[in-house]
Amino acid sequence: MPRRDRSLADLGESALIERIARRAGREIGRDWSLGIGDDAAILSTRRDEELVFSTDAQVEGVHFRFGRETPRTIGRRALAVNLSDLAAMGATPVGALMSLSAPPHASVSIFDRVISGFVDEALRFGCPLVGGNLSSAGEWSLDVTVIGRCRKARALRRRGLGPGDGLYVTGVLGAAALARLRADRFGTRLTRVPTPRIEAGRALARLSGTRACIDLSDGLATDLAHLLAADGLGADIDPASLPRPRGFRRDCRDLDLDPLGVLTGGGEDYELLFAFRSQRKRVSAATLSERLGLRVSRIGGVTTARGILGLPETPSRHHF
Amino acid sequence: MPRRDRSLADLGESALIERIARRAGREIGRDWSLGIGDDAAILSTRRDEELVFSTDAQVEGVHFRFGRETPRTIGRRALAVNLSDLAAMGATPVGALMSLSAPPHASVSIFDRVISGFVDEALRFGCPLVGGNLSSAGEWSLDVTVIGRCRKARALRRRGLGPGDGLYVTGVLGAAALARLRADRFGTRLTRVPTPRIEAGRALARLSGTRACIDLSDGLATDLAHLLAADGLGADIDPASLPRPRGFRRDCRDLDLDPLGVLTGGGEDYELLFAFRSQRKRVSAATLSERLGLRVSRIGGVTTARGILGLPETPSRHHF
Repeated sequence: MPRRDRSLADLGESALIERIARRAGREIGRDWSLGIGDDAAILSTRRDEELVFSTDAQVEGVHFRFGRETPRTIGRRALAVNLSDLAAMGATPVGALMSLSAPPHASVSIFDRVISGFVDEALRFGCPLVGGNLSSAGEWSLDVTVIGRCRKARALRRRGLGPGDGLYVTGVLGAAALARLRADRFGTRLTRVPTPRIEAGRALARLSGTRACIDLSDGLATDLAHLLAADGLGADIDPASLPRPRGFRRDCRDLDLDPLGVLTGGGEDYELLFAFRSQRKRVSAATLSERLGLRVSRIGGVTTARGILGLPETPSRHHF
Repeated sequence: MPRRDRSLADLGESALIERIARRAGREIGRDWSLGIGDDAAILSTRRDEELVFSTDAQVEGVHFRFGRETPRTIGRRALAVNLSDLAAMGATPVGALMSLSAPPHASVSIFDRVISGFVDEALRFGCPLVGGNLSSAGEWSLDVTVIGRCRKARALRRRGLGPGDGLYVTGVLGAAALARLRADRFGTRLTRVPTPRIEAGRALARLSGTRACIDLSDGLATDLAHLLAADGLGADIDPASLPRPRGFRRDCRDLDLDPLGVLTGGGEDYELLFAFRSQRKRVSAATLSERLGLRVSRIGGVTTARGILGLPETPSRHHF
């Protein structure tokens, strides 16, 4: 009897990406200073500038449902989650392409509202929609590619951590997960759209102490593991330091949720997680907060011992 | 009773794109020299160079079926049809991003073969896979964005025709449609992948007489209409001049097909359709063929009277 073929879900996202990277090879030519495996790819264009590219899909039934999100929210979010990848690179948006697939019988008025949400977000962040593709399909899917720019060699990568570096997050964690779970539980409409931390990312790219950065899409536990894996390091996290939204404890109680699970595995925070160089004088979260223009919390530090202390393991969402 | 909401299929692709373009606005900033509505968008990067961007999706059940195409063919084609858009701009490939969606239960060995086909095509055309995204979904979808470069202000656009210009196509028409129809009829595997006309496109971009160019994805009738619409002109086509593959008449008879319908509406030719400036001395197809390194046929000329003489109207495929 032939061995049962493994499924994509059996292997999981990271292993599948590794398979693609291995097959594609590491040789991507000298134009590219960064390829597969980070938040974005980096192309050298001028002596003083690089372009960064990232792509992300929002699929009906996986990332959104028309019964739960409004069409405008779906359009806005499709761009916002991509801009978040640019933020994690410290890049400034330049433009976006959108490949939209939808069932032929879908309504034009819904289409219009999706587009309207997307374009409003594009205008807000100075990221014009410059091209795309339309195709019929069995389900809606918004596949977006964003282009950003940053100063040569200043893009924030996932790699670059050192033992003793402080680990920081912007904003609060868990708010997106709570909103989603509340909508699922009570059947309310979800209109929350993450705010891509473009300005904070640009500020981080200007600071010489920033060592590595990633945006929190899958949840702190998963994304921190990605960040650490790039350098083969570990982390010691203080769960009490994780920044919570207002009324967090009450909301978790009302929804009968494990607070730490929501904070670290809820996903879709789209805040920045970054490492800042250890120095004799530890950089305070308040100082960074002032530089970045929004709340910053120190949540722990990088260790030589692999593994993450202080966080429960949680499975990745939306993926194989 | 409320008026029935129109569907995407009611409106059609062109009208939907126009709706997006109107909503997005024409103001895309001075970085971009071309936005929505052509084969690709153009970004100014250096004084002597521009980057071009295009995106195209291949959706299971719409553009391919696993029973009909092999997984390798599906992977190769997903890149090839995108490279064809770069060819139509006269651009040289720089890199590609692929957003792949698939059902979680899909097999890893099929995944590997799809990736393998994509990467082989990438290596063949010097277009490294530099990034992407994986997502679970109800159906397979390969959404690819390609980046190309060309000399400043030399990209081939759709706009730029003049009355009296000659209209030319590379290669032959109808071969892809015949192969697809044969596979459908006899249940044979489809392994044909279009050859993106990268070198021909680059050669056209160097010739000063080239006026406008588009790649033939939907079929000559539809794509010629797109080319003419950009300048509000018409065309006079000689059906007898349309370049046919070997054994074309016999194949059409065996499959009981209208030859002209196959040539002009079969789609997926991925040849280049371009206009060349009228001069006192008409440029011969043989001269162009020599410059482009492949067969070139003169199929007619541009007229001031709108409409296309000599071609039947055919509906667009794969679209709303």
